[in-house]
Amino acid sequence: MATLGLIEYADASAEVRAVYDDIMVTRKTDRVNNFWKALARDPATLRRTWESVKQIMGTGALDALTKEMIYVAVSATNQCAYCIASHTASARKAGMTDSMFAELMAVVGMANETNRLASGYQVEIDEQFKT
Amino acid sequence: MATLGLIEYADASAEVRAVYDDIMVTRKTDRVNNFWKALARDPATLRRTWESVKQIMGTGALDALTKEMIYVAVSATNQCAYCIASHTASARKAGMTDSMFAELMAVVGMANETNRLASGYQVEIDEQFKT
Amino acid sequence: MATLGLIEYADASAEVRAVYDDIMVTRKTDRVNNFWKALARDPATLRRTWESVKQIMGTGALDALTKEMIYVAVSATNQCAYCIASHTASARKAGMTDSMFAELMAVVGMANETNRLASGYQVEIDEQFKT
Amino acid sequence: MATLGLIEYADASAEVRAVYDDIMVTRKTDRVNNFWKALARDPATLRRTWESVKQIMGTGALDALTKEMIYVAVSATNQCAYCIASHTASARKAGMTDSMFAELMAVVGMANETNRLASGYQVEIDEQFKT
Amino acid sequence: MATLGLIEYADASAEVRAVYDDIMVTRKTDRVNNFWKALARDPATLRRTWESVKQIMGTGALDALTKEMIYVAVSATNQCAYCIASHTASARKAGMTDSMFAELMAVVGMANETNRLASGYQVEIDEQFKT
Amino acid sequence: MATLGLIEYADASAEVRAVYDDIMVTRKTDRVNNFWKALARDPATLRRTWESVKQIMGTGALDALTKEMIYVAVSATNQCAYCIASHTASARKAGMTDSMFAELMAVVGMANETNRLASGYQVEIDEQFKT
Repeated sequence: MATLGLIEYADASAEVRAVYDDIMVTRKTDRVNNFWKALARDPATLRRTWESVKQIMGTGALDALTKEMIYVAVSATNQCAYCIASHTASARKAGMTDSMFAELMAVVGMANETNRLASGYQVEIDEQFKT
Repeated sequence: MATLGLIEYADASAEVRAVYDDIMVTRKTDRVNNFWKALARDPATLRRTWESVKQIMGTGALDALTKEMIYVAVSATNQCAYCIASHTASARKAGMTDSMFAELMAVVGMANETNRLASGYQVEIDEQFKT
Repeated sequence: MATLGLIEYADASAEVRAVYDDIMVTRKTDRVNNFWKALARDPATLRRTWESVKQIMGTGALDALTKEMIYVAVSATNQCAYCIASHTASARKAGMTDSMFAELMAVVGMANETNRLASGYQVEIDEQFKT
Repeated sequence: MATLGLIEYADASAEVRAVYDDIMVTRKTDRVNNFWKALARDPATLRRTWESVKQIMGTGALDALTKEMIYVAVSATNQCAYCIASHTASARKAGMTDSMFAELMAVVGMANETNRLASGYQVEIDEQFKT
Repeated sequence: MATLGLIEYADASAEVRAVYDDIMVTRKTDRVNNFWKALARDPATLRRTWESVKQIMGTGALDALTKEMIYVAVSATNQCAYCIASHTASARKAGMTDSMFAELMAVVGMANETNRLASGYQVEIDEQFKT
Repeated sequence: MATLGLIEYADASAEVRAVYDDIMVTRKTDRVNNFWKALARDPATLRRTWESVKQIMGTGALDALTKEMIYVAVSATNQCAYCIASHTASARKAGMTDSMFAELMAVVGMANETNRLASGYQVEIDEQFKT
């Protein structure tokens, strides 16, 4: 059903396998998500997307778990079904408990509500926020 | 410019002042944002919204700073100008450094990109994510 | 600032003036919004958009006020600043009181929240809704 | 498939059953939607969400049917599959006919179109809307 | 599952068949998509929507293939599953190759990312863009 | 107003200047947009974002003008004010005429409308699109 099909490891070129290998090593797993298999038909897209994700998602000023939860928050806001499913799994693997998930979703829900209230009520930005 | 105007503390009813006071005590500040002043024309909305925010944003399984950053992530995804301005300020007050902000935005940007790639490529959800 | 500029009545072609006249007659007003003046550079777009709006917004199974409020609800959900400003004015002209506006926004806020909760929690659609 | 599973009435705690009962009484129904069952794993979220919905959706300056239709309009704008299914059912139960639905969707479609035209054409807000 | 059901050609009124015929002639096909069959319950919506699409999608300053690809770009941005499926098919029929699709999606992904970076970083619009 | 301020060329580190120089050479211009100046506070974000944009936006199976127009289409759909302003300028520089812009916007508007109609009417995906 994926627009360009899914490229399985067995059918992948050396270039694509190199990316698959790096994904599995970095994420300490023995499988590759459908997302990567779908992008693999265009190796340039696969490589650039993976390199960016790898660069962005490692621990830095924010730890990996916090980053995974932000990914879930954005995916839930955009209501991307694939992304919600895969990133909820990633966040759990990184340590997100059910309580953390519920609190995360409570914030996501409230933020989506107050965003529209602020816009709908045409609230002018407070001067002190403009610095 | 706010649709129903802004209700300043000096002009507020006792009911509205009670909410304003609770906001200032809870947030340890001596001012009330335009957002609350805009909602105050409808005291029921003001009270319900504040009570929900107060319940949701306190430290729980997730600490307050993480919750504030999730709020920024959602507001940036939705591109709500007021909310980005006010919640960036709140997050900074809760301890978000410039480095944390930059990493947060990198995740937000990447997630908004991969959400569309997953949807646009019509990627089927992996079986293992369906549990 | 409008991308193709604004075409004022005095500078408009006969084709464009015909649409401006119909807008003013239909809406019982003596001015044309910037929105229509911005589209006027492309008369085909102006005419098609106005004809569709005119067809859709008149009283039918739903009255005009209800339709104007739905327009505000969508514009607030999408956070379109121009549209929130102009359609709030239209809705007020059609009879929307401050109380109606506040209740409308309360529903808009809540719906935007529960939409994300339903998606984020990956709630399966109840069988009885599938008919 | 729901992230935290669904809590059926039979397996629910007294706290959760109390909310389920109130939902069924208020909505004059003998079942609880999957949405509520999914939130029930976090009783605080369940209770707060239901209390807000109950407060917001009753007849006030706007009647219940109008509110249900606004909920459909927002859900369709956000394209939340679960919400479109459940709220279309609620709106029908509140009296929405097929003609009302078609007119509602016509407004939703048009508003989503003109929101992007206004933004894309960078239309400046008319002075008279800024009061 | 479609809210108002699907109206098959065999069951359609003369008014609806006239639109179906025009769709098939214009698109050089012998079938009508579910989208049109779903709108057909409200002939006014069906006719207006088709007339607008017909007017907009033909070759003009932009050729038909470019227009179909823009349609895919918008549908992917909004993550409308039905639209991504049907418009990807239309674009392929108009000449979109797999390479074009991959490049289109790369731009869509990047644009959705930089939109949020620009908004999240609260970047002020450069003076030279304001003309 | 930009959250981390804007880094002007004169105040930039060698690392940041290298990216600014590459932007100006690649785009054949003598200035750098506020967008890049805002990201420059985090050189890793600046570099990665520019490298991706540079890779994606050059002529390939799709020419540069088509890619710029897709960027405008996405930015208009998301209603990102900064992006609409800057990318409309880029598209014009790449050859987009007023007529092309108007036709582009007509498709963007229509697609945003039919996306919601397809979702709101809960249209099931045609079998032939599932291959």
